[in-house]
Amino acid sequence: MTEVILETDALRAFLAAQFPQVIDQVVLEEVAPMRARMRLLRDDRHLRPGGTISGPSMTLLADVAFYAAILAMIGPEPLTVTTNLSLTFLRKPADEDLLCDARILKLGRRLASGDCLLYSAGGSPDKPVAHATLTYALP
Amino acid sequence: MTEVILETDALRAFLAAQFPQVIDQVVLEEVAPMRARMRLLRDDRHLRPGGTISGPSMTLLADVAFYAAILAMIGPEPLTVTTNLSLTFLRKPADEDLLCDARILKLGRRLASGDCLLYSAGGSPDKPVAHATLTYALP
Amino acid sequence: MTEVILETDALRAFLAAQFPQVIDQVVLEEVAPMRARMRLLRDDRHLRPGGTISGPSMTLLADVAFYAAILAMIGPEPLTVTTNLSLTFLRKPADEDLLCDARILKLGRRLASGDCLLYSAGGSPDKPVAHATLTYALP
Amino acid sequence: MTEVILETDALRAFLAAQFPQVIDQVVLEEVAPMRARMRLLRDDRHLRPGGTISGPSMTLLADVAFYAAILAMIGPEPLTVTTNLSLTFLRKPADEDLLCDARILKLGRRLASGDCLLYSAGGSPDKPVAHATLTYALP
Repeated sequence: MTEVILETDALRAFLAAQFPQVIDQVVLEEVAPMRARMRLLRDDRHLRPGGTISGPSMTLLADVAFYAAILAMIGPEPLTVTTNLSLTFLRKPADEDLLCDARILKLGRRLASGDCLLYSAGGSPDKPVAHATLTYALP
Repeated sequence: MTEVILETDALRAFLAAQFPQVIDQVVLEEVAPMRARMRLLRDDRHLRPGGTISGPSMTLLADVAFYAAILAMIGPEPLTVTTNLSLTFLRKPADEDLLCDARILKLGRRLASGDCLLYSAGGSPDKPVAHATLTYALP
Repeated sequence: MTEVILETDALRAFLAAQFPQVIDQVVLEEVAPMRARMRLLRDDRHLRPGGTISGPSMTLLADVAFYAAILAMIGPEPLTVTTNLSLTFLRKPADEDLLCDARILKLGRRLASGDCLLYSAGGSPDKPVAHATLTYALP
Repeated sequence: MTEVILETDALRAFLAAQFPQVIDQVVLEEVAPMRARMRLLRDDRHLRPGGTISGPSMTLLADVAFYAAILAMIGPEPLTVTTNLSLTFLRKPADEDLLCDARILKLGRRLASGDCLLYSAGGSPDKPVAHATLTYALP
């Protein structure tokens, strides 16, 4: 399993149909083998006092980004579910969108595991705002 | 530090002033030494296809519950921030509110760590929907 | 699955046969439904400068304790393997054995998840030395 | 803080003096800004039935590698201690040494966080055996 079988446009359409309640908050930027980049469209719903982006918003971003990376490799499988998500908060985000680079480290028959770097859109993945690790159960 | 210094009513008022954007979603039920119980008022914003409660909603609930447990012990310190939050998803929630029992395992000078059990309001903490571990940096 | 099907003595014999290299370091104290208590026999191999117990020794203790809790419920299944283990270090241990109370929060068909409290043998689980969360894949 | 202030040779000497009980098990291969590579010298002590490397051995490797990456940046500070270590097990290791690439994602005043990829010495970091995330408290 080293080829993308669900390309960016098809995956965007699947996510829009599957998650109508989040699709105005995130945009799939691109997929590559074992990788996906997702953008959080920063708005007031995501903010906490002081202008920082909330933990739940980062959970949303990391979870959808990693889900997209998996679906790109295995196709549209809505029964793919998160079993563990761990977030480490590293820096205060800038006043801009948040990008998330998801990376699958192991795509097994039953489990997929990997991580995500979250960083400000005008910044660099070398100065991440947060780091997430995720495990999904596959159908 | 074994006594509650910020009681339930005062803590509710502090959270309402501090987090106006979440206070219609969660209710602090009670605090006790090193403990807090928080309720997620289940509504459409928290749901995913199939009626399950979303990961970001559980992040919100666990994070606010543990924050409340800390503030009950140290007083109103808005600079208390999450450094790590890890969620393990265990069972599909029932169609009802979600309760969260937060427990501080160590309240140090610089860090507070503990965990949360999330369970359906009509169910039991013995059948948790999710388990969270959290670490906060203290001011 | 709420009954122990592999009792303490039989489980001790299984662990001794299965893990000859660790069985002089840990002792299974008791099992109960969804629970196990394991003891680390503190010796020089487990220590770090200052007399603290090393992270790898705590990993060993938590991992074997949780494995025992699972096997007590599902029987002797050597293909049960750890998929995730997370340790939070809370307090310096006392100069004595370490006890570990393992608790299964969900015993599913494919995964088992739960946590462990590690505490000094002369102390109390209310003052834990470390807290672990674990997920195992079942055969 | 972007320069190495404790180079590989000096760091090796510090680790040998500090951790005499582990220094015959691991070798520091090299350090770079915010990075360190450590090797586990595979021997019988590290093995489980079937020839796999034990979880405690991987904990040891990841913990020492990340510690080395921090000390390379801040100098010889023995009071730097692990607060959280999370391991995800991904693949069965090959019958050879294990390498560990540690990466600091945030080096703050009080906390340092990052991750480690563990992979077989004859293999590739693209096929990791395990992934670890770590947080250390700084003195």
